Amino acid sequence: MSEPEDISELKHIDMTVRELLTEMKDSSEVIVDLAYASLMYNSTSMAEKVREIEDEMDDLKFATRYKVLLSSRTREDARQLSGLLEVASAADRISDAASDIVGLLRFPPEKRPFITEMLSEADEKIRMIRIADGSSMAGNTIGKLAVEANTGCKIIAVKNRRGWTYDPEGSAKLRAGDTIIVRGTDDGADLLTEYASGKKEWEFEEPVSEEEEETSDKEDEKNEEELTQELNGEGDGE
Amino acid sequence: MSEPEDISELKHIDMTVRELLTEMKDSSEVIVDLAYASLMYNSTSMAEKVREIEDEMDDLKFATRYKVLLSSRTREDARQLSGLLEVASAADRISDAASDIVGLLRFPPEKRPFITEMLSEADEKIRMIRIADGSSMAGNTIGKLAVEANTGCKIIAVKNRRGWTYDPEGSAKLRAGDTIIVRGTDDGADLLTEYASGKKEWEFEEPVSEEEEETSDKEDEKNEEELTQELNGEGDGE
Repeated sequence: MSEPEDISELKHIDMTVRELLTEMKDSSEVIVDLAYASLMYNSTSMAEKVREIEDEMDDLKFATRYKVLLSSRTREDARQLSGLLEVASAADRISDAASDIVGLLRFPPEKRPFITEMLSEADEKIRMIRIADGSSMAGNTIGKLAVEANTGCKIIAVKNRRGWTYDPEGSAKLRAGDTIIVRGTDDGADLLTEYASGKKEWEFEEPVSEEEEETSDKEDEKNEEELTQELNGEGDGE
Repeated sequence: MSEPEDISELKHIDMTVRELLTEMKDSSEVIVDLAYASLMYNSTSMAEKVREIEDEMDDLKFATRYKVLLSSRTREDARQLSGLLEVASAADRISDAASDIVGLLRFPPEKRPFITEMLSEADEKIRMIRIADGSSMAGNTIGKLAVEANTGCKIIAVKNRRGWTYDPEGSAKLRAGDTIIVRGTDDGADLLTEYASGKKEWEFEEPVSEEEEETSDKEDEKNEEELTQELNGEGDGE
């Protein structure tokens, strides 16, 4: 882990600070899930992906620092923007911790006492599920299915004929015969297993008309504002 | 953060290593959600809870170390058990990072540029939702509703007449007028908002008979075993 010597080597330099921070937050969550999943399934290729994301996080952190330094002109700027760097650094440290977790793969599974038990007793569990031929999930994208919203299970990895994809996009299509690795509660994984096996039919949400959606968004915004005021009115916040 | 001088002061000494590790993993996930939620809603009381969990993590880490040292009799034991300490330490470092995140609360919200944007553009979002009078969620426990399995939203905090509860248990009952803070995808939070507002009726799962459950568990186990073999057979793992 060394700082790039030439600034033109810096990756992600075209991203805004906001985009960089968002990417770092998302990656810091994905990397921890993948790290535990690599232990659960003794997968060196998942561990490899963890290391890749960790390298990526270093690049993102450097790019964030560079952008923040560039835009910090006054003492006041510097004060505010230093807070941002703390969040970036927290996300980076989370990904370092994930990278330590996969270090455990150097021991064979039988020499990693308690780890499997820990993973199977934790609130959020990791499960491997196959999409069966008769499953109504097959042929649909992860985004269209809204797998996480409907089952609480986040898809960490998908295996199809071309191999494994880690942290798949919403546009990725699931096919019969694919295997997915998910993170979720027991209830959620049981529900997803029923859909994936074809025992239960997937219930697609009826598309909401744009007009309806807009009204509802505005209502949500208003409600959230009221709730926030209430929260702060109770002596909470500054 | 200092080591307790007298071992009888050590908390959690009655827990097994397995229980300690599981607790550390669960807490390291909850604490990050709470840290981001405290920024989102500028809540010093959530930040306070983050600090409490961080202190608890230190206690858990010491107890884990103590137990591991006690049970490490041979060179081989020591080698294996040192791996466990790495996982415990990773979970502890994640909670330290969460504690740094809440440090940002020393700036007022208007002096925390990009943070709200980051939180509203991330994959996993934080939302505040009120349980309306007509909601079919009211009067039921979080566990019975299986909120996470059915909406993908994890309830981070609940506010009722008695105040806030952070990281509520499955046995906690939701009532009309309660406010919940959740972490989930946009789709999931939209779905939960429909249930909470009473616009949509909650669909309770039909209880599965014990016999059926047992057969299904066995099938799941068999399937998972086959899948794991397949995963490892593909040159993955050691």
